[in-house]
Amino acid sequence: MSATLFPQHIIAKKRDGGALSREEIQAFVRGATDGSWADYQLSALLMAVFLRGMTPEETADYTDAMMRSGTVADLSAVPGIKVDKHSTGGVGDKVSIPLAPMVVACGVPVPMISGRGLGHSGGTLDKLESIPGFRTDLSLEAYCAQVAKIGCALIGQTKDLAPADKKLYALRDVTATVECIPLICGSILSKKLAEGIDALVLDVKFGRGAFMKTEAEARELADALVRVGRAGGKEVRALLTAMDQPLGRAVGNALEVAESIACLRGEGPADLMEVTVALGAQMLMLGGAAQDVTEAEAKLQEVIGNGRALAKFREIVAAQGGDPRVVDEPERLPRAPLQTEVPAPADGIVAEVDAMEVALAALALGAGRAKAEDKIDPAVGVADLVKVGEPVHAGAPLCTVHANDAGKARAAAARLAKAIRIVDVSPPHPRLIAGLMS
Amino acid sequence: MSATLFPQHIIAKKRDGGALSREEIQAFVRGATDGSWADYQLSALLMAVFLRGMTPEETADYTDAMMRSGTVADLSAVPGIKVDKHSTGGVGDKVSIPLAPMVVACGVPVPMISGRGLGHSGGTLDKLESIPGFRTDLSLEAYCAQVAKIGCALIGQTKDLAPADKKLYALRDVTATVECIPLICGSILSKKLAEGIDALVLDVKFGRGAFMKTEAEARELADALVRVGRAGGKEVRALLTAMDQPLGRAVGNALEVAESIACLRGEGPADLMEVTVALGAQMLMLGGAAQDVTEAEAKLQEVIGNGRALAKFREIVAAQGGDPRVVDEPERLPRAPLQTEVPAPADGIVAEVDAMEVALAALALGAGRAKAEDKIDPAVGVADLVKVGEPVHAGAPLCTVHANDAGKARAAAARLAKAIRIVDVSPPHPRLIAGLMS
Repeated sequence: MSATLFPQHIIAKKRDGGALSREEIQAFVRGATDGSWADYQLSALLMAVFLRGMTPEETADYTDAMMRSGTVADLSAVPGIKVDKHSTGGVGDKVSIPLAPMVVACGVPVPMISGRGLGHSGGTLDKLESIPGFRTDLSLEAYCAQVAKIGCALIGQTKDLAPADKKLYALRDVTATVECIPLICGSILSKKLAEGIDALVLDVKFGRGAFMKTEAEARELADALVRVGRAGGKEVRALLTAMDQPLGRAVGNALEVAESIACLRGEGPADLMEVTVALGAQMLMLGGAAQDVTEAEAKLQEVIGNGRALAKFREIVAAQGGDPRVVDEPERLPRAPLQTEVPAPADGIVAEVDAMEVALAALALGAGRAKAEDKIDPAVGVADLVKVGEPVHAGAPLCTVHANDAGKARAAAARLAKAIRIVDVSPPHPRLIAGLMS
Repeated sequence: MSATLFPQHIIAKKRDGGALSREEIQAFVRGATDGSWADYQLSALLMAVFLRGMTPEETADYTDAMMRSGTVADLSAVPGIKVDKHSTGGVGDKVSIPLAPMVVACGVPVPMISGRGLGHSGGTLDKLESIPGFRTDLSLEAYCAQVAKIGCALIGQTKDLAPADKKLYALRDVTATVECIPLICGSILSKKLAEGIDALVLDVKFGRGAFMKTEAEARELADALVRVGRAGGKEVRALLTAMDQPLGRAVGNALEVAESIACLRGEGPADLMEVTVALGAQMLMLGGAAQDVTEAEAKLQEVIGNGRALAKFREIVAAQGGDPRVVDEPERLPRAPLQTEVPAPADGIVAEVDAMEVALAALALGAGRAKAEDKIDPAVGVADLVKVGEPVHAGAPLCTVHANDAGKARAAAARLAKAIRIVDVSPPHPRLIAGLMS
């Protein structure tokens, strides 16, 4: 190794505010992958990056090196422009589940590698696994084969995909270096670009239930993601969407799958439909299946109306070992033994449904993980949630708690009652989609 | 542990520019000592401190916590004000060896815990161990007993002394977080304050052979050291001294002991005598043995002249298992098999003796360690070095290389010839002592 590529020298250069060369960034990422850098050296550089930043070129080099730290899936044999969607995470965000089959049904292949839930944020994999038999642990080969065959596969990150990110993400979590835009960009995009996609639509969320608390922060992150994705040779667009109240009316794994199926039938909650269709429209345009938003939205409504989106979901479920009857009989999904309604304390209008509080209530019920090794209960959660702006009547339900334990049900109901604020006068209608970055 | 004392929270607070509370700093230092913080968390915080700094209060709390991370020697049973000296390190810096017996001979106890050499900088322990039989690995109990009995002990850091510093210093070395004044302060002072001293004189060196390259940097460090030492309840003074050429005429372990003995006989090189007496004078004043510099210098000259300083050194050598005959017959010190003179290329005046180059020549001869696990040869090094401002004649020696291998001798001679610059006109006399901070 060249003397200038010693960890200490690279760390010192960034510490002093210098821009790292591509070679230096590659040495760092290689060090994270093969263990030639000690963890304490990786974390010292992560902190220096946090405080000194990275130029757009450095961020692009970092993302590229992370992507290449493992296997990069080759989907070039699959005809068409492959487009994926990534969300920065929110509460009740099950969008991927109805979105993927809708877009595939319109002719655009969707290779999608998703994550698990941790903390307040749910994970697509956990939701899908509430479908009896559904497997998300496909090998990269099986994933490529399935995308080639039916246009879509919904799997989890394999260990050969961007291993440097896995290593660095774990370190960032325990060294206070998570909230750093170049590092976030590298982490998100390295995994997505390794999927073998041609284009990507991002859902960058902001608000109390999101990672980014303000629209300005979300805009900054979206801007960086679009820029770095482009530098990596991919078409990338980002929607900025609000995440103050949960998306849809259900939070919890099987409950969200049921809501996703309703969506595919055209019976989903309005806000969930709005975000799903908006993201899908961008995907269709990037995938060459529509010229503009109007055409794209019409196509998406068409595959919902004629049942082809639902049929595609049935096909995906079957291909991944799941029970396809669930798609037509959602009552086959796991159901919690206890259902408890949370009554409205008074007549009024819903002014606020605190997404973070709802998420924490669901987490405590067993729908999520506080630590990575926690087991989840697919059946529990919160359903039939009221939405901001809806009228409620004293004693009528604000939501239903699905629980496996009466004590937990009571605790969740109490927490949820506090999370929902009722007022006398109509609040302003919350804006859901705040912008498009492209 | 309180939630606010989680490593991530403390790291994040410093990362965002906050000042850590005493409790937070104690949690960090405790984490370094007992392993409850992972190395990658320690290094992330070290980098955050490097880039965000520490207030004087934080630095004092950090130093205090490091000092208390292990045993604090109790010398309260020893009468008198115990005073030590610490140097930030230089080339040919053997000052501690003549200084300690001189000061003790004047009635001020000197408990001194020193380090080993690493890289270009020599270590007092290595020099002392070139005296046949001399042991520096005394226990803390034996150290205290010897200080009580003869007023002085010259030992190495025991593992129970400031263990947090040992841990953090090793990490800083490999994470580019060494050159940071609060961290340097904490490292130096925690060890020195744990010795059981009442007062401390610092020799903060600057120049090409020193850790701090400029006088301004040295002044900043000295200022912080004095301030933090005071906050720790100790009287601390600092001399700023130049380190562009080696101190004295010898670089190498036994060669430097021989020069130290010459010093104690009043026959040492002028620059070495000047720095030793200047530091000694401050120690006598702090130790209550002199009112002012004039009185202190007179006392030091007296103990040199009447042989009491040399007798004290003989006593220390004997107490620590060394052969006391060395003090009167320095030829009993290890002697290298080969002596090679480096001839002057022309008549002229010495304009420059590059301390760093001389140090690296001695290191290559085997006088020092490139890595901590390297073995040293006590006999090898460079002697009879010319000093800046001295006239030289073509063919007459600039210095003598002491080597155990002809090839190494040739390489050292070539390097040294380049390190010494000869000019026609007298250069300005270099200033050795640049200031006193008190």
